Amino acid sequence: MDNNEKFNQLIGCSCVNINGVVQTAADAKISVFDRGFLYGDSVYDVTYSDKGCIIFLEEHLDRLFNSAKLIDLNIDLTRSQIIEETIKTLNFSKLTRAYIRIIITRGEADMSLDPSVCFKNNLVIIVKPQPPYPQELYLKGLFLHIPKIERMNKKAVNPNAKSGNYLNNVLAMNEAKKFGADDALMLNADGFITEGTSFNIWIVKNGTIATPPLESGLLKGITRQKVIQICRDHNLKLELKNLTKEDIYECDEAFITSSTKGLMPVYRIDHIFLSDAPEKRPLSQTLNNYYQELLIDQMSRFKSSGLN
Amino acid sequence: MDNNEKFNQLIGCSCVNINGVVQTAADAKISVFDRGFLYGDSVYDVTYSDKGCIIFLEEHLDRLFNSAKLIDLNIDLTRSQIIEETIKTLNFSKLTRAYIRIIITRGEADMSLDPSVCFKNNLVIIVKPQPPYPQELYLKGLFLHIPKIERMNKKAVNPNAKSGNYLNNVLAMNEAKKFGADDALMLNADGFITEGTSFNIWIVKNGTIATPPLESGLLKGITRQKVIQICRDHNLKLELKNLTKEDIYECDEAFITSSTKGLMPVYRIDHIFLSDAPEKRPLSQTLNNYYQELLIDQMSRFKSSGLN
Repeated sequence: MDNNEKFNQLIGCSCVNINGVVQTAADAKISVFDRGFLYGDSVYDVTYSDKGCIIFLEEHLDRLFNSAKLIDLNIDLTRSQIIEETIKTLNFSKLTRAYIRIIITRGEADMSLDPSVCFKNNLVIIVKPQPPYPQELYLKGLFLHIPKIERMNKKAVNPNAKSGNYLNNVLAMNEAKKFGADDALMLNADGFITEGTSFNIWIVKNGTIATPPLESGLLKGITRQKVIQICRDHNLKLELKNLTKEDIYECDEAFITSSTKGLMPVYRIDHIFLSDAPEKRPLSQTLNNYYQELLIDQMSRFKSSGLN
Repeated sequence: MDNNEKFNQLIGCSCVNINGVVQTAADAKISVFDRGFLYGDSVYDVTYSDKGCIIFLEEHLDRLFNSAKLIDLNIDLTRSQIIEETIKTLNFSKLTRAYIRIIITRGEADMSLDPSVCFKNNLVIIVKPQPPYPQELYLKGLFLHIPKIERMNKKAVNPNAKSGNYLNNVLAMNEAKKFGADDALMLNADGFITEGTSFNIWIVKNGTIATPPLESGLLKGITRQKVIQICRDHNLKLELKNLTKEDIYECDEAFITSSTKGLMPVYRIDHIFLSDAPEKRPLSQTLNNYYQELLIDQMSRFKSSGLN
């Protein structure tokens, strides 16, 4: 199946809400004067639903509003309006397991970089099928590459704002794919590991779990926050500290966290092979077990919230 | 007139070409699955037309293709197809003085950062009225502010690729507007001046003209290249060198260059006032006179090219 066919198949079973109107994905279009299209002047957040439960919706909305605050984008919708529109779109899709992307742009306006010229947000909610990732990826793991391209400097465009400016990540992914890897893990200008193109990174060394701090220039992942909490709740040794390439190359275990992937192990970074056997990754396994418990708890909480 | 009315007025007299189909601006929409909208994964260039002549079209197309090369974006249209569509759109608009923005996105695809999943560019050409800037701006000049936000590092997202990732510039402009200035002039991580949000910067000190080098992290402006050539042709003292804030604060003359603005003087940077009288900016005036001659020459060349 070529890219064109794959895309048509996706379009066929997705649906999109634009400013409250839910439509088929093929009809979902936005003005070329939208600042999201012209400048990437938008914020977004992504989660997924399982059996009608939207996973960590509240946390994703907190982050969406925080991203907006970081780029001084005024959201003229209330939180409950966004929840209502998200659930409406999900119900319309009839998907049992769906990827959910909520995008808010600074809106349409005359072509000026000045953000004060725009007058009204555009809200776009994309709901598409999200089958679970292949089991193979949770058993063997991912192959990551550290690309030449650096992570955007947080003093220029803060990676903690999940915005429509993702070219940095696209270019890193492009390098990774050319290297033959699954994805890219990026360094900051000081040579410290920051994050992947769409995930946070973790290592285990001599029984201590470590992940880079927010200050290194990264997105404060929802799953990252959950794993930090798990470490604290279960008295697991955790360090938020700057990590070098060498720290990653020489670790005992490595895994990533992402809202759609959860915890996924890493079996290779560049030319360095880590273990690809689950039993040799005891702490990753332990953390993942706790995280799966959290997900089950979250699903039952969502059900009893009456939102679905 | 509020922003909404202004925008409606603009929409009313603009037109847009999407993949060869010219339409009114109100109808000009693009799929929300377009990577330009999702990630700012696009390149563009801007010029204008005067009396049917498109100013430095060849140079802008060279740069468009170079921007695409810098972000590894394959353009599946030929140069002559893009020229043909641009002229078709301009003629359709019937505008005698028009802003012309040519955007090429990596196209629509399943939602993956991997750029190899997309299959076909989207071409968008926006043509809208571009009346000359107020004469006041050419006499008195601009008030610039140096914001806290840094220019994107060229090792992360190269400013020399004119892409759909313009949030860095939007945020700089936002700071400038809050400061009460007209526009922003950005520093790189080393503290050197790079460029404005949409222009290059120039100073004159003791008879020597200076502008930051490409290495400082900036877009190689078309007008910048023309002014460099003018300096060389007329044996004017020119230095391409790193400039500090202090160099700008202490200069004798300062001006900006941009494709739509041409050469425009600067009368104030932050709390420092430079001269706001044209006669006290002799070198800026000389350069502008030569540039106006170039524009007249360019217009007669365009007319005789048979393109219009």
